[in-house]
Amino acid sequence: MSPVGELRVNGDRLWKDLMAMAEIGATPGGGSGRLALSGLDRQARNLFVGWAEAAGCAVRIDKLGNIFARRAGTEADAPPVIAGSHLDTQPLGGRFDGVYGVLAALEVLRTLDENGIETKAPLDAVCWTDEEGCRFEAGMVASGVFAGKYDLDWALAIADPDGVTVSEALKEIGYAGTEPIVGIPVAAYFEAHIEQGPILEAEGKTIGVVLGAQARRVLRLEVEGAEGHAGTVPMDRRRDAALGAARMVDAINKIALDNMPGVITVADIRLRPNSRNTIAGGAVLVVHSGHPDGVTLDTMEVAIEAACGEIASAAELELSIEVKDQSDASVFDERCIATVRDAAKALGLAHRDIHSGAGHDACNLALKAPTGMIFVPCEDGISHNETENAKPEDLAAGANVLLYAMLAWAK
Amino acid sequence: MSPVGELRVNGDRLWKDLMAMAEIGATPGGGSGRLALSGLDRQARNLFVGWAEAAGCAVRIDKLGNIFARRAGTEADAPPVIAGSHLDTQPLGGRFDGVYGVLAALEVLRTLDENGIETKAPLDAVCWTDEEGCRFEAGMVASGVFAGKYDLDWALAIADPDGVTVSEALKEIGYAGTEPIVGIPVAAYFEAHIEQGPILEAEGKTIGVVLGAQARRVLRLEVEGAEGHAGTVPMDRRRDAALGAARMVDAINKIALDNMPGVITVADIRLRPNSRNTIAGGAVLVVHSGHPDGVTLDTMEVAIEAACGEIASAAELELSIEVKDQSDASVFDERCIATVRDAAKALGLAHRDIHSGAGHDACNLALKAPTGMIFVPCEDGISHNETENAKPEDLAAGANVLLYAMLAWAK
Repeated sequence: MSPVGELRVNGDRLWKDLMAMAEIGATPGGGSGRLALSGLDRQARNLFVGWAEAAGCAVRIDKLGNIFARRAGTEADAPPVIAGSHLDTQPLGGRFDGVYGVLAALEVLRTLDENGIETKAPLDAVCWTDEEGCRFEAGMVASGVFAGKYDLDWALAIADPDGVTVSEALKEIGYAGTEPIVGIPVAAYFEAHIEQGPILEAEGKTIGVVLGAQARRVLRLEVEGAEGHAGTVPMDRRRDAALGAARMVDAINKIALDNMPGVITVADIRLRPNSRNTIAGGAVLVVHSGHPDGVTLDTMEVAIEAACGEIASAAELELSIEVKDQSDASVFDERCIATVRDAAKALGLAHRDIHSGAGHDACNLALKAPTGMIFVPCEDGISHNETENAKPEDLAAGANVLLYAMLAWAK
Repeated sequence: MSPVGELRVNGDRLWKDLMAMAEIGATPGGGSGRLALSGLDRQARNLFVGWAEAAGCAVRIDKLGNIFARRAGTEADAPPVIAGSHLDTQPLGGRFDGVYGVLAALEVLRTLDENGIETKAPLDAVCWTDEEGCRFEAGMVASGVFAGKYDLDWALAIADPDGVTVSEALKEIGYAGTEPIVGIPVAAYFEAHIEQGPILEAEGKTIGVVLGAQARRVLRLEVEGAEGHAGTVPMDRRRDAALGAARMVDAINKIALDNMPGVITVADIRLRPNSRNTIAGGAVLVVHSGHPDGVTLDTMEVAIEAACGEIASAAELELSIEVKDQSDASVFDERCIATVRDAAKALGLAHRDIHSGAGHDACNLALKAPTGMIFVPCEDGISHNETENAKPEDLAAGANVLLYAMLAWAK
């Protein structure tokens, strides 16, 4: 790519916009709560659309409510370079997860406009519908339909717990667009996002050059023992499902430590009957694992099965294991990765390559177009939490990397 | 004691009575559900009182509804030898826990009557109110007041979750008696009960000579770590409360195995937020421990604190430990223990000394009068469960031991 010039986004304006957006659905703990396609989501979308139109963008809404704010290129028919993320949040979410990527993209468009810089390809700042999947229990669906991974009619028919479908919710908030969602050409996609983990902060890096997102798998382990009176059954005659489960959690943790940067988390444990007076007769563990390399994730799963099987046998417990959910690894485009890395380097920003532990709309876009992501640090690695925080200067730095990445692809 | 004669209880009648009582509040799974002072408890009490009156007993009800069915002795003023247990059950309880002790005592009185055998001391078959403590959340209260351990007015004022007090519930079912509950002299107390554990059955013994009940303690361990995104926080940067809790469960189990016949059970574990995507930020463990020797129980508690403290430190977790409940060990009267052992021996019944892991009304009576207990085997050691089961011949054998034990003390 070409070396960077003096051009920089307006970091103060970006911060001000982020804080203004955070007011919509502000939570007592300092975060934001805007469930997808809720009245608060409508307010957030309206605010974004208003800003985009004020910046001279043409706004289109597609059939799943994805919003595209376009700055025209000199070649009207060239496939656009697009960037964005999402405006919906967890019920008690933070001010940056998603929102940052949308507003950073808008800030890039404004910056180019204010500096009279033209690009060949059009540039879109995009807001994807319902990334979080909190309300409709399936996240990243709208970007998935856009990328050709899911069927549009299926997505429109997904219902929330009250029976309201995506289609109905889109109409209710006025974002049931008419623009086509499939077959749209894309030159490249970039997404700026807070890391949602502690690595960049701990290592003093400003930019994470995201190589891809890890493969993930969710296992359900069911342990069966025998209930008994906690006061009367001798220790050497017990078949204690809680004890078996505890040993499995420890063994699984060792497997994870042996396979870093892979992660395995057991954070959902349910005992039966979970009463202090009755030895646990059953335990269900949800085991959530991830690794950038799908083959290694397979070997981790085999190791989990072997270790837990041994623990169960030794304690005379029964064990059954079921795969509840899985997703393949996303590998981002090498050219996009290089673009992000080069921009960070040219801007003099401390950076490192990194894998995303979480899923993002970019994982879907990677199925359709050259894709890259830019991570910036967040405080203590905390996300999906009202206390989520990030530094204005890091957010501006990430937006500058996005600026030069988009420019590089849009010429 | 004098060697036993040909006198035996009617085991068939005892079994028939047990099965008739089990019909009151019969559950689909083959057990009984009779919460204390409920309409079903009234029916069970009425059935017992009817049988006792039919057997020629004089029935008295004290101020907490404890029922005493008396067979007079030749010395009217001699302190009675009393035996019994309780007719209330767990919500989904079994057919024998408690009921057996009450009906075995009644069967002893009938047997003496039918055989024209007189005793110097009066004999009482007693039903204690609310042993289980399921409805009013404090068990063994009525026997505790009788023994002088608790205050009568305090006990009468205990309310169930609907706000109904013990006093009101007693009136409602017609068992608010007028007989005094304190200062009643007792020559000796015996209680026959199913073991509620697997030892007698496993060793092929018919009679457990109960030496006392273990000291018990309930600890609440609160582990504090840090919540985080399950997909993104590297394994070596986690402060995972679930992992800490798991290691504590395993360590606590080792302490228990090192201190048998002591027991420690962790069967109530609650993670925060208990969501598969979020590393557990907190865990609460309820640790239920018991040992026949209170001093050893103290050392077990110290070991738990030390082991869990080390685990917490190593994993950078915070740990707080609180004693939620405790009871001292009950040591039964040596003469009563010898009476039970001698009776079992003289009757040719395989027997062994045993500690009770559970609490019983006998633990309260032991504070007031010479007390002993007789255990009989139950199937697979299962109790507090609809499937609770025991053999008619074992139940008859236990009642015969009770017969000779009461005779020995009543002369």
